Amino acid sequence: MLQQAAIIGDGAMGTVSAMLLSANGARIGLWSAFQEHADDMSRTGENKRFLPGFPLPKGLRISTDAAEATEGADLVIIAVPSRHLRGVLERIKAALPERAVYISVIKGIEAASLLRPSEVIREVAGDRRLAVLSGPCLAREIAARLPATAVVASPDAETARIARDAFATPWFRVYTSEDHVGVELGGALKNIIAIAAGICDGLELGNNAKAALVTRGLVEMTRLGAAMGARRETFGGLAGLGDLVTTCTSDLSRNHYVGKEIGRGRSLEDIRETMGRVEAEGIETTRSAVALADRHGIEMPITREVYAVLFHDKPAPDALADLMSRSLKKESDGLTG
Amino acid sequence: MLQQAAIIGDGAMGTVSAMLLSANGARIGLWSAFQEHADDMSRTGENKRFLPGFPLPKGLRISTDAAEATEGADLVIIAVPSRHLRGVLERIKAALPERAVYISVIKGIEAASLLRPSEVIREVAGDRRLAVLSGPCLAREIAARLPATAVVASPDAETARIARDAFATPWFRVYTSEDHVGVELGGALKNIIAIAAGICDGLELGNNAKAALVTRGLVEMTRLGAAMGARRETFGGLAGLGDLVTTCTSDLSRNHYVGKEIGRGRSLEDIRETMGRVEAEGIETTRSAVALADRHGIEMPITREVYAVLFHDKPAPDALADLMSRSLKKESDGLTG
Repeated sequence: MLQQAAIIGDGAMGTVSAMLLSANGARIGLWSAFQEHADDMSRTGENKRFLPGFPLPKGLRISTDAAEATEGADLVIIAVPSRHLRGVLERIKAALPERAVYISVIKGIEAASLLRPSEVIREVAGDRRLAVLSGPCLAREIAARLPATAVVASPDAETARIARDAFATPWFRVYTSEDHVGVELGGALKNIIAIAAGICDGLELGNNAKAALVTRGLVEMTRLGAAMGARRETFGGLAGLGDLVTTCTSDLSRNHYVGKEIGRGRSLEDIRETMGRVEAEGIETTRSAVALADRHGIEMPITREVYAVLFHDKPAPDALADLMSRSLKKESDGLTG
Repeated sequence: MLQQAAIIGDGAMGTVSAMLLSANGARIGLWSAFQEHADDMSRTGENKRFLPGFPLPKGLRISTDAAEATEGADLVIIAVPSRHLRGVLERIKAALPERAVYISVIKGIEAASLLRPSEVIREVAGDRRLAVLSGPCLAREIAARLPATAVVASPDAETARIARDAFATPWFRVYTSEDHVGVELGGALKNIIAIAAGICDGLELGNNAKAALVTRGLVEMTRLGAAMGARRETFGGLAGLGDLVTTCTSDLSRNHYVGKEIGRGRSLEDIRETMGRVEAEGIETTRSAVALADRHGIEMPITREVYAVLFHDKPAPDALADLMSRSLKKESDGLTG
């Protein structure tokens, strides 16, 4: 039975994790890097900045002191943007309990090292019992207790079960998997395709074109994943296809939003400015995925076009036109490899 | 080079087929079963009933006389609802040219026989050079010349190439496949999942729940398809996943619309009445798929719940609740078989 959990991160996923664990009876400490935001959440009983409209769990202890947040925790949820992950872990390292089970809910890839979040956690914190959670999990919908599903994966089956039991509620169904590489990569890579789908929507190219992008996008995600040691079938599951579909069709997705605004003609700098501390993980993940595709010699045409649009000022209409006019004779030519 | 084509059917897909073939320089005859509609199209130069807002190709000959429509045709497009297919073919059989290439664009399964449209065509018309075309093809978007993709499949590679060259335009990319069973079944079975997704939307259950339905839906489509001789990978392509994504997320899909209205509490009879001659193929396909699942001993939980809602008055909220609470421990438990 879960007694005590710690959440590292004050964003939407950290907050919704607190809600789920609390529904299962856990006592929870939540660590925020920002005193002002911690105070605001404690005072109002709500995360007005990242998940407004939902009361925080009763008894949630919010602190900027990591030792206080993690005291006695047998479960630690890591929920910080991937580009801050290493810095945060280095900073709070001493406060990370040795015997706890760790669950990363991060969907990204560290840009400098090209490591998955769980690999960064192991590198900084050492060998831990570690699981990753991913899937079609728009935080606002889970907070509203609408039905949702997710997958937890760990090389250790017992760790995966502990993670599942901590998160699973009647409205949030959690499946286990042994493919931690695939589950973690699925959640990261789909954000790139979500940006592409957003561009398609911003250009008003229609649902036929977007469906083609999603389909071909999943093919290239699977291709890179398999080269990195993931199982292909994981990408056809909730952490691949499921998450991809949600992210590509919901206005609640930040990555889709970024793409849509680019499609409408705004610059990335301009969009980033208005988003403030809200992160669209797909931007940095695109950079990482291109580097990984180079390393593994994998063809990723959609990812490369998104990269050209984001970082080399390629006009979005040209990128989409180039994608739609790629020459493939047989469909299976593009499905293999 | 394509000289002369005939379209059998006056619906949206027949009309959009005429537009594409005409863009490639074909002379086209279009057969309608309804004199009034044929006259209306000839007079207005538009298919106001099924594809309003787009001019019909110049020189399109519309007729209720099949022999007139098919005269000299080296290509015949079959574009009638599957439940009228056999009756139409029996009626116009004498007018079907022997040496032409036939392309079915029908997405359904004949209810009484459980045959695919191409099988019905062969049964009535005898052995023909035959291809099927499927994919994410919302007719209004293709008519508007927004970019789209499709797959044509035939056991005979040369027939597939002829079909591809007839349909492919700069805005409509057509890939070839040898898996005619998978391509044809993908287009039919996705309509069931589209109804389920519509129910989910009508009940306002959110994008997380819908993504789970789409993901699990593709799994059961693939399972049945594989048992019927299709290749699994076809369902991960444009004619499976691609079409599924479009249909589950677009308000232009009739099957999604039917599900949504049911989710909102309307009865099937009531919805059918307001749709008139417009067919939602997924309704009959659900019935066929349940029979096929029984025959092949395939688990299809989503299809069975849609069936219970459509034909046995099961309340939609109960069906969705039953689906979301199915017990699966490992995600892969549901992916195999």
